[in-house]
Amino acid sequence: MEQIKLNNELSISRLVQGVWRLADWDYSKKLVEELVEGCLELGIDTFDHADIYGDYACEELFGKALPSSLKQKLKIVTKCGIKLVSDKRPDHYVKHYDTSFEHIVWSAENSLKAMGIEAIDVLLIHRPDPFINPNEVARAFSQLKAQGKVKHFGVSNFLPSQFKALQAALDFKLVTNQIEISAIALHEFDNGSIDLCQELNMHPMAWSPLGGGSIFNAQTHRMMTLKNVLHKIGDNHGATIDQVMYAWLLAHPAGIIPVIGSGKLARIKAAADAVEIKLSRQEWFEIWVASKGQSVP
Amino acid sequence: MEQIKLNNELSISRLVQGVWRLADWDYSKKLVEELVEGCLELGIDTFDHADIYGDYACEELFGKALPSSLKQKLKIVTKCGIKLVSDKRPDHYVKHYDTSFEHIVWSAENSLKAMGIEAIDVLLIHRPDPFINPNEVARAFSQLKAQGKVKHFGVSNFLPSQFKALQAALDFKLVTNQIEISAIALHEFDNGSIDLCQELNMHPMAWSPLGGGSIFNAQTHRMMTLKNVLHKIGDNHGATIDQVMYAWLLAHPAGIIPVIGSGKLARIKAAADAVEIKLSRQEWFEIWVASKGQSVP
Amino acid sequence: MEQIKLNNELSISRLVQGVWRLADWDYSKKLVEELVEGCLELGIDTFDHADIYGDYACEELFGKALPSSLKQKLKIVTKCGIKLVSDKRPDHYVKHYDTSFEHIVWSAENSLKAMGIEAIDVLLIHRPDPFINPNEVARAFSQLKAQGKVKHFGVSNFLPSQFKALQAALDFKLVTNQIEISAIALHEFDNGSIDLCQELNMHPMAWSPLGGGSIFNAQTHRMMTLKNVLHKIGDNHGATIDQVMYAWLLAHPAGIIPVIGSGKLARIKAAADAVEIKLSRQEWFEIWVASKGQSVP
Repeated sequence: MEQIKLNNELSISRLVQGVWRLADWDYSKKLVEELVEGCLELGIDTFDHADIYGDYACEELFGKALPSSLKQKLKIVTKCGIKLVSDKRPDHYVKHYDTSFEHIVWSAENSLKAMGIEAIDVLLIHRPDPFINPNEVARAFSQLKAQGKVKHFGVSNFLPSQFKALQAALDFKLVTNQIEISAIALHEFDNGSIDLCQELNMHPMAWSPLGGGSIFNAQTHRMMTLKNVLHKIGDNHGATIDQVMYAWLLAHPAGIIPVIGSGKLARIKAAADAVEIKLSRQEWFEIWVASKGQSVP
Repeated sequence: MEQIKLNNELSISRLVQGVWRLADWDYSKKLVEELVEGCLELGIDTFDHADIYGDYACEELFGKALPSSLKQKLKIVTKCGIKLVSDKRPDHYVKHYDTSFEHIVWSAENSLKAMGIEAIDVLLIHRPDPFINPNEVARAFSQLKAQGKVKHFGVSNFLPSQFKALQAALDFKLVTNQIEISAIALHEFDNGSIDLCQELNMHPMAWSPLGGGSIFNAQTHRMMTLKNVLHKIGDNHGATIDQVMYAWLLAHPAGIIPVIGSGKLARIKAAADAVEIKLSRQEWFEIWVASKGQSVP
Repeated sequence: MEQIKLNNELSISRLVQGVWRLADWDYSKKLVEELVEGCLELGIDTFDHADIYGDYACEELFGKALPSSLKQKLKIVTKCGIKLVSDKRPDHYVKHYDTSFEHIVWSAENSLKAMGIEAIDVLLIHRPDPFINPNEVARAFSQLKAQGKVKHFGVSNFLPSQFKALQAALDFKLVTNQIEISAIALHEFDNGSIDLCQELNMHPMAWSPLGGGSIFNAQTHRMMTLKNVLHKIGDNHGATIDQVMYAWLLAHPAGIIPVIGSGKLARIKAAADAVEIKLSRQEWFEIWVASKGQSVP
């Protein structure tokens, strides 16, 4: 699988494996290791974490399951900034965000420890924080970078104005915005976020690239129409619906990087195979129109 | 009629004649020539086309009707990027956009041929394309410019974030954004598009400057109120409703350039005469308030 | 009370006293003077006016009530650009905006005369004007600045795109955007305005910092929930609801400057005391969540 450049120093695989549901999968260490080995064989070398995934458990499950020699082959994305109400964090009584210097630094160091790695390749602020102090975030990022604990930084779910406020405080460029994009969820095309990525020549990562799976038991007229279109195009390419949805993202000129949610190697392989599917412009728009429920103007 | 500068190299007439409905008018070549001659006599030297107008027919109707000597006096705006489902384009099965290098270059060259002219003065991307590759558009624009086939470039119906994404990829400045603005359609004042024009000292062109004519048989309370206000102000100036609507656009400090939709010389002359009508600031706001249906805050 | 820097030349008190309702209070000159003296004793040295407050009366009431020696200790913010329908302005027949060179200059000079002062510290455009000519505003601002009549300039209620259009025409930086922000009115967090302030390191001023007082007789479920949360947090800090609302604004990293609306010294003192209340990040979010009516995502 090809690599995609986030900047001059960092390239990652065209598809990223997400481990959001690692705790739910309830895999043995051996199974986790096999999953990661399987991904690497497919050319997927980048794994997407967050401190809070699995109620603060996934990073450690991941870290404990893998031998160091394997971890050295991986590129790790993780996130910080959300504070969940959780038995693991008894002082949280309301779900909130924390992008203070102290919390960012503490959280990144905690992620390193949990995963048993030397450095995070990309650290993202998980959600835009209405109480953010961009200068304080910048101070935390700079320290983590100087110490070699985090190599690159990005954000997730940021609107353009939020992105610009943070970027203005930094000496270096944010490398990505991880946002929800799929053939089902088109809002990031309409709110300026993908436009900003293109303005900055920055690749977005796409979470929930299959729209959370809702297409598979389509209930509404719009979803059924979309499903039919995906089926028809899939037939043209000898591909499944989910492969067409990946191909739809991969075709886009912004260089969208899908984050795979499944933990089943067969489905991950299907996603990897979708890299070879080349949708025509007109097929891309057929999906767009079905999803919008109306013709382009 | 005065000219308005789009940039240091290009000035066009304060009003532009649109030929969107040229095919519908079903004019003889002689009538088309008389229309164009009539416009020139009024000082209107700029004509607004698109490849798709009249189901891909208007450019050629225009080109074939006019002698070369006449065409040399005109400034030509045309557009590309929409692909209609049409008998003329049997390979289109869904209306979509195409802003690929190949299509832009092919479409511009096709427009030159259809109109029988050496160069397009301004080529616009007709609609924001969710599948745009700004770098590819930039490559097409640069080639067309270097070859002298297109002198200047702009867009149409672009939101600010879409405009900025494309502009960032270009070595030269886009010269206009052709958007829907009228006393009836105020949304471009609210979505930042006119603000961006003012930030960039760029003049917008206004399509549907009379709001598609809906005011003439006003049905809703808002439209009837607006019609009454336009009538009253018209009476102050010895002007018709449509003249007041043109004057309302012309008064605006952004230097809005209305695109006339009518093919009747009498109505075009009425528009041209509206250039002399000077609305007061308070009249301008009386129309704004009537159209909004509420007082300014 | 601490001061907050609007730029390298101007610092104002962390809280600003608004005199929007000065005419309604129906104070004697002596009472006005006592109010101002009382504010100064609390460290509040900045007063927020507009030409139109009190139907064009407040600036003069203020100016006539205060001895020059007292006025010299104050920093004055005032506004221009709205034209009210009023007996005092018989030529206004519709409420409208006027940001012409002539009106801005005339209005600023009139404010100086009405208040009996030598210079306005900060002059704001009161509302975004859909008929604005940024270059004309720039010319007016430059002249007023060169003449020493106005020291600094800002805006009020401007959206980011409107702010940028005006800023682009100016040789110097706007120093603030006075917008509606309170624990009840969160829209400026969502429309990019506070983000832009943070991008530009510019402090917003907050009008209606108590949300117009609607919380005090909360009627809706959302308002009652918010009131309960404010009460609970107030109890933690030995503070009243309104003090918690001030503290909520003051805690924000953007350096939000609340404009006090009350004319009662006891309530102004309560506001001043709120500067010492330090809300925790989690308390800040508890209020945010209650006001939004839903958990953060």
